Amino acid sequence: MAPSKDRVFLMHAGGKIEVRSRVRLRNQADLARAYTPGVARISEAIAADPELAYSLTMKCDAVAIVTDGSAVLGLGNVGPLAALPVMEGKAMLFKKFAGVNAVPICLASQSPEDIIDAVIAIAPSFGGICLEDIAAPKCFEIENTLRGALDIPVFHDDQHGTAAVVVAALLNAARVLRKELSSMSMVVLGAGAAGVACTKAVLKAGIGDVVVCDRSGALNGGNVHGLSAAKQWLAENTNRRGLTGSVREVLRGADVFLGVAGPDVLHAEDIRAMGKDPVVFALSNPVPEIMPEEAAPYARIIATGRSDYPNQINNVLCFPGLFRGLLDAGARAVTDEMLISVGQTIADCVPLDDLGFDHIIPSVFDPTVAVAVAEAVRNAAVQAGVVRPGRCAPACLGQG
Amino acid sequence: MAPSKDRVFLMHAGGKIEVRSRVRLRNQADLARAYTPGVARISEAIAADPELAYSLTMKCDAVAIVTDGSAVLGLGNVGPLAALPVMEGKAMLFKKFAGVNAVPICLASQSPEDIIDAVIAIAPSFGGICLEDIAAPKCFEIENTLRGALDIPVFHDDQHGTAAVVVAALLNAARVLRKELSSMSMVVLGAGAAGVACTKAVLKAGIGDVVVCDRSGALNGGNVHGLSAAKQWLAENTNRRGLTGSVREVLRGADVFLGVAGPDVLHAEDIRAMGKDPVVFALSNPVPEIMPEEAAPYARIIATGRSDYPNQINNVLCFPGLFRGLLDAGARAVTDEMLISVGQTIADCVPLDDLGFDHIIPSVFDPTVAVAVAEAVRNAAVQAGVVRPGRCAPACLGQG
Repeated sequence: MAPSKDRVFLMHAGGKIEVRSRVRLRNQADLARAYTPGVARISEAIAADPELAYSLTMKCDAVAIVTDGSAVLGLGNVGPLAALPVMEGKAMLFKKFAGVNAVPICLASQSPEDIIDAVIAIAPSFGGICLEDIAAPKCFEIENTLRGALDIPVFHDDQHGTAAVVVAALLNAARVLRKELSSMSMVVLGAGAAGVACTKAVLKAGIGDVVVCDRSGALNGGNVHGLSAAKQWLAENTNRRGLTGSVREVLRGADVFLGVAGPDVLHAEDIRAMGKDPVVFALSNPVPEIMPEEAAPYARIIATGRSDYPNQINNVLCFPGLFRGLLDAGARAVTDEMLISVGQTIADCVPLDDLGFDHIIPSVFDPTVAVAVAEAVRNAAVQAGVVRPGRCAPACLGQG
Repeated sequence: MAPSKDRVFLMHAGGKIEVRSRVRLRNQADLARAYTPGVARISEAIAADPELAYSLTMKCDAVAIVTDGSAVLGLGNVGPLAALPVMEGKAMLFKKFAGVNAVPICLASQSPEDIIDAVIAIAPSFGGICLEDIAAPKCFEIENTLRGALDIPVFHDDQHGTAAVVVAALLNAARVLRKELSSMSMVVLGAGAAGVACTKAVLKAGIGDVVVCDRSGALNGGNVHGLSAAKQWLAENTNRRGLTGSVREVLRGADVFLGVAGPDVLHAEDIRAMGKDPVVFALSNPVPEIMPEEAAPYARIIATGRSDYPNQINNVLCFPGLFRGLLDAGARAVTDEMLISVGQTIADCVPLDDLGFDHIIPSVFDPTVAVAVAEAVRNAAVQAGVVRPGRCAPACLGQG
């Protein structure tokens, strides 16, 4: 179809977001308050007490969505311009679900140093940084350096957003199956941004054991030679039994499969060889590691990243509410404890009566999720003592 | 008054701008078009043809307002956080007068290299860069380097916005006084960003002669030792008669005074000593180089930067319409010719019947100005051959 007649292209024409004034500007008196000379008093007040920027400017409510376009959706390294419509989509979701003002910042450079420098440079305008679609392993270094350099929260959505929602799905899968998390084992396929973060999060949530596989098979402490720092950590802190072999080999007898790798790597017999009541989270998008139809005869619970199957594991359940909570708390940082709390909260958004094999995760359109997540994050921020003194009043949720 | 009860502080609470969705997101079908999986097709199209980003993303309509907070209003170097409410005010004006989506980007570093690197890094998200309130002389280097590095227009408002509106005021002052521009002389006080740009612009517009004064007095070709590159250019290209001395000395007999320096430097007798029908543009804000009441007995035409006197010379007459025109044309650059054309256009927005000593400049609330400026800029961009092939359709003016 010609792009000019295509409904998807028409929806994106001219961009999907806009910047609008929140106050009226009708006449000279309004102008004199919003702009010169009145604004000079606001500037002077902030110059005297920089913390006032968190209540008297956009910083109160604004997040930069930063990407270099190196790992966009399932498309790979398409670069910053091609990443822009995806980031605009994220900005829409930020606004719709949590009233957060998110600005897509697509960077011209893909070097870690340049990305770090650019984010530090633009940070004064924003109350939080959401890193998106930056390839592993550089995403780990970038995030760690920025967390040390900035006193606003820095969050890599592909890692921690995915991890929080996977924790939610796992908790409810265990509930439905009446299993103890500590007795469950998981095999993770994919040791990129999402694989690393999900593994750390499910361990922190209390799972019994995890075995992580990359293209060469199971990571284990016996051979860490030549591995990246992130994979080395995985090799040394997972796989208690020291399993070796391919994902299909180590999957035998496991309780949960988590795929964050790519399409079509498993088959029905692999699921059949898993332990009792297999749980399959096949998150590759749009084509999962195994199609639900193929897994269905043997899997007890199946979740994907897709909206056209039950149990959609989608980051949008996390990031809008998470940043709403961080901004409202005036949080200086995002902590591991917050993410576990977010996972627990998302899980609890499915009422016990509704919980079932096909309903372990709330709908992405459930408006209660972002509200509950924001509250959990505010509380966790206060408990962690990372709250700024002059914080904003909680803004309206669900605007736009 | 306590900030919490102060109307100006209340207006700024929570920030003055927001990011909103331009398309509806009601259900899974909308989500599938605006975000995954639909957006992947937009990304792939842009990856194949990057020019499509100018019609299918926010780049079509978005400008970054970039500052380091080193020369904010009359406040000086208050830094990026204190600059933020001023940049938000600019963003409101961009939207109100020309429907342009402007994002304040306040930078953490004040070094020219860091500013240049940051702007190059964030450029993919934007269709234009508006530099604001960056101190001279570094602003010249920053602007020149960025113009060479980027293929989107880079415009330093303090220089060229001021210059375009001063040209407009000068053209109409000459009209009202029935003087030939080529026979007029101007004394400029202040050799910073605005002084340099205004001098170049009025020379290009055809004024007879200009003498520029800094704190040490008139710049002239006889002594360029130790001057910055910008002042050296002024010394060598202005002041035909080689005048020396203080601003008050060289002002004797001059036709026009342009003050872009600071408050209270002239007195009534200085105006009395000017040529026939003196024109005084005293633009220091909020306190002009001479108060209109003091100049009034001798000056024939008085303009200031203030809204509470006639003839307000304000950049807002230029920048919204200018960027609207640049974006609609898909311009790769802004040229000197465009700025002269903008000055002429703003001057022509005052109908001949209305032209008078107290009305040489249109009101900042005249909605026809931005429309006319945008059209002039589009035409100038086409004539200059700096137009991108796949340009946007002209968007609605006057939104917000």
